[in-house]
Amino acid sequence: MNPINSDFKTRQASSSESSDSESPVELASQQTPLFQPPPPTSGDSSKLDRWLMRTMLEKAGNPEVEVVLWDGSVITTATTPVSVRAHIRNRSTLYKLIFDPSLYFGDGYSLGTIEVEGGLVEFNEAIDQGTHKVDTQGFYRDRFRRSLGWLKRNTIDAARHNIHHHYDIGNDFYQLWLDEQLAYTCAYFPDPDDTLEAAQIAKMDHVCRKVGLKPGGSVVEAGCGWGALAIHMAKHYGVNVRAFNISREQLAYARERARREGLEKQVEFVEDDWRNITGSYDSFVSVGMLEHVGLKNYEELGRVIARCQRPHGRGLIHSIGCNSPRVLDSWTTKRIFPGAHVPSLSEFMRIFEPQKFSVLDVENIRLHYARTLEHWLERYEQNIDQVRDMFDETFIRTWRLYLSASVAAFRSGSLQLFQVVFTNGANNEIPWTRAGLYQERESGSVEG
Amino acid sequence: MNPINSDFKTRQASSSESSDSESPVELASQQTPLFQPPPPTSGDSSKLDRWLMRTMLEKAGNPEVEVVLWDGSVITTATTPVSVRAHIRNRSTLYKLIFDPSLYFGDGYSLGTIEVEGGLVEFNEAIDQGTHKVDTQGFYRDRFRRSLGWLKRNTIDAARHNIHHHYDIGNDFYQLWLDEQLAYTCAYFPDPDDTLEAAQIAKMDHVCRKVGLKPGGSVVEAGCGWGALAIHMAKHYGVNVRAFNISREQLAYARERARREGLEKQVEFVEDDWRNITGSYDSFVSVGMLEHVGLKNYEELGRVIARCQRPHGRGLIHSIGCNSPRVLDSWTTKRIFPGAHVPSLSEFMRIFEPQKFSVLDVENIRLHYARTLEHWLERYEQNIDQVRDMFDETFIRTWRLYLSASVAAFRSGSLQLFQVVFTNGANNEIPWTRAGLYQERESGSVEG
Repeated sequence: MNPINSDFKTRQASSSESSDSESPVELASQQTPLFQPPPPTSGDSSKLDRWLMRTMLEKAGNPEVEVVLWDGSVITTATTPVSVRAHIRNRSTLYKLIFDPSLYFGDGYSLGTIEVEGGLVEFNEAIDQGTHKVDTQGFYRDRFRRSLGWLKRNTIDAARHNIHHHYDIGNDFYQLWLDEQLAYTCAYFPDPDDTLEAAQIAKMDHVCRKVGLKPGGSVVEAGCGWGALAIHMAKHYGVNVRAFNISREQLAYARERARREGLEKQVEFVEDDWRNITGSYDSFVSVGMLEHVGLKNYEELGRVIARCQRPHGRGLIHSIGCNSPRVLDSWTTKRIFPGAHVPSLSEFMRIFEPQKFSVLDVENIRLHYARTLEHWLERYEQNIDQVRDMFDETFIRTWRLYLSASVAAFRSGSLQLFQVVFTNGANNEIPWTRAGLYQERESGSVEG
Repeated sequence: MNPINSDFKTRQASSSESSDSESPVELASQQTPLFQPPPPTSGDSSKLDRWLMRTMLEKAGNPEVEVVLWDGSVITTATTPVSVRAHIRNRSTLYKLIFDPSLYFGDGYSLGTIEVEGGLVEFNEAIDQGTHKVDTQGFYRDRFRRSLGWLKRNTIDAARHNIHHHYDIGNDFYQLWLDEQLAYTCAYFPDPDDTLEAAQIAKMDHVCRKVGLKPGGSVVEAGCGWGALAIHMAKHYGVNVRAFNISREQLAYARERARREGLEKQVEFVEDDWRNITGSYDSFVSVGMLEHVGLKNYEELGRVIARCQRPHGRGLIHSIGCNSPRVLDSWTTKRIFPGAHVPSLSEFMRIFEPQKFSVLDVENIRLHYARTLEHWLERYEQNIDQVRDMFDETFIRTWRLYLSASVAAFRSGSLQLFQVVFTNGANNEIPWTRAGLYQERESGSVEG
């Protein structure tokens, strides 16, 4: 059985309630089978093999890469000398690539039947740049494929499964490469040279300022990760927060942290789906959850917000997006984020337009996500020995590809990062300009 | 014949090339027929009349207004004491209102068969606020009605007719109530108390900064009005501008102004439709033209931009919009802006998504348009005697209603004002943050 066809092996998490542990989840022992790339066993490549590979590259927009087959044959459609190349170790990998390039490039890399030379980020970037050049029909083809994606409804049960798949594989794993507050979303770097830690705090302040938090106000957060933003809002802006999440490991960590910081009364972490949010709040905030909501549920999300955000409140949704409607590649949706969808702005508007919300501000901070991911990838590689103590080589390579391909996607413009601020259509209690977002302030000062 | 069924009577414009005149268009003599509101001739109102009026108010969301019929009967569904009321002078006006409230309220007001007490802005605002409360089915009904609007294509010929209808009624008329540079679009008030003149300059700088003009760069402007922005960009940012417009009177004025300022070599004003833009430019800028483009032509506009904006250029479209797809009211599209459409953001994206442009920034400055219109309305009323020398009373009342209802629409949130910044999907030469827009600078300094 293909080891990456099932959920990654994870460790038994100990109770996260143990208060005397730095890391609330302890490492349990596990098998880490030695990684053995399959030997090349396909003999010489045939004319057909080489023709197929070349045709694939042409269809992919002639990216500036080389492909080296198992017998050393070099295939390329690049017009200039290239610095990145992929090695395909056997014929069956090549034929799988024809069937679904995205899925089997990823799986091939994970299993070691594909190796990349010259940088995994750079290789993916070259592929993305090629793809951008391809056909003008893409818009309509993508719309059609996306409409098929509509059929997949992320029900509450499916959502639980999907979230568990990615987020419940061990808080200590994420601690190896995220910032110290475990913010697993795009940071905001006022200066590109800021540290990741500083940039995650700046992102939280940017969000808080955009929605205009006031002391004593209330916020509902949909999808709170390990609780960094909820705690930041309570601690630095004096608001009461109710934060929803369906990842049990994340919630355990978040509750423990709120307890340690003495904020249990100000921040309530609720293990439930966003569809079950009740109550009324000044602001609705959601950072990095929309990707998991599924396009078909956007209108329902809008109804939930309309129900729970007070007429004079401002809300914010922060999400990965794209420039035109498309489906995510099959590798990402099968191996990394089941059920994920990244919206174009017109799709994003399905949340707001049926409710006649007024969209006040859309900011695209795509390059900040490339920068964030560079930090994550760097820390991941720095701590690779510790990752190796936790997981097998297939896992290591899968996550390396995921982080590298994500850097490439945000650098090349395949993915965007949108922050959308919105309010009730009749609300005139809105900032006169956006200048207040850019005034020098201490972290945590409240919008004037 | 209903005087507002045809184009408003305008004066013969003298040659705008005469250089020794402060105003390039001279006033020609004309008849200004005395305004006579029709006398009330409908006898007592019937039970049916009153029931119809009340039902209409209920359908309109029970706005906080009173309606006084020709016999003094007061109809209201308001729940609190109201400060605004409309007087309907005769039965035929009431029955027309039932058929098409928007159109015949406007026409009735223009002709004096409807009078408004307590403030025309305030009355319209109360009506708008009522409308917001009405049915949740509005989103789908509006989408359907809007899809009918799609059938109306603004061909090049129709566009010429539509633009002539509104913009070629005499530059000297617009000089009576616009700012000194004749910017007939939403201003940007860094401080709400800024003068209209300062706010129009701030708007132009805001636009120039958003697209990052650099000295020696090139800009194509689609729909340039009287040339204020084109001249501002050339004069203060050192760029070469090619500006398109199909309003002859506006172009004559703009050319004369560029000549006076010695900018003929830097700014070329072209009498042609945006569809015929040729050449390639660093930036595509369009302020207040999209409203006239027609939804069916958005994709074509996107293709024109993709053709003429260089890969590393940023573009900006500034347009009136709305929170969800809708058709403009019938009075506005029949009497004020034939062929006009105001897009929701999802509709707006039809320009960008098929071309896979990256949307970088959307700013909604709705309340700035309310403020701008307050200035225009105030100046209009201050100069009403001069308007009366040019046009008849029907015209005066039509334009008073247009300006007042527009103040109300932006105050109440019926209309929005979006500035959308976009660039080629693969362009990484974009500002790292938006902070540069908010740094104190002299007008005309160039983005760092």
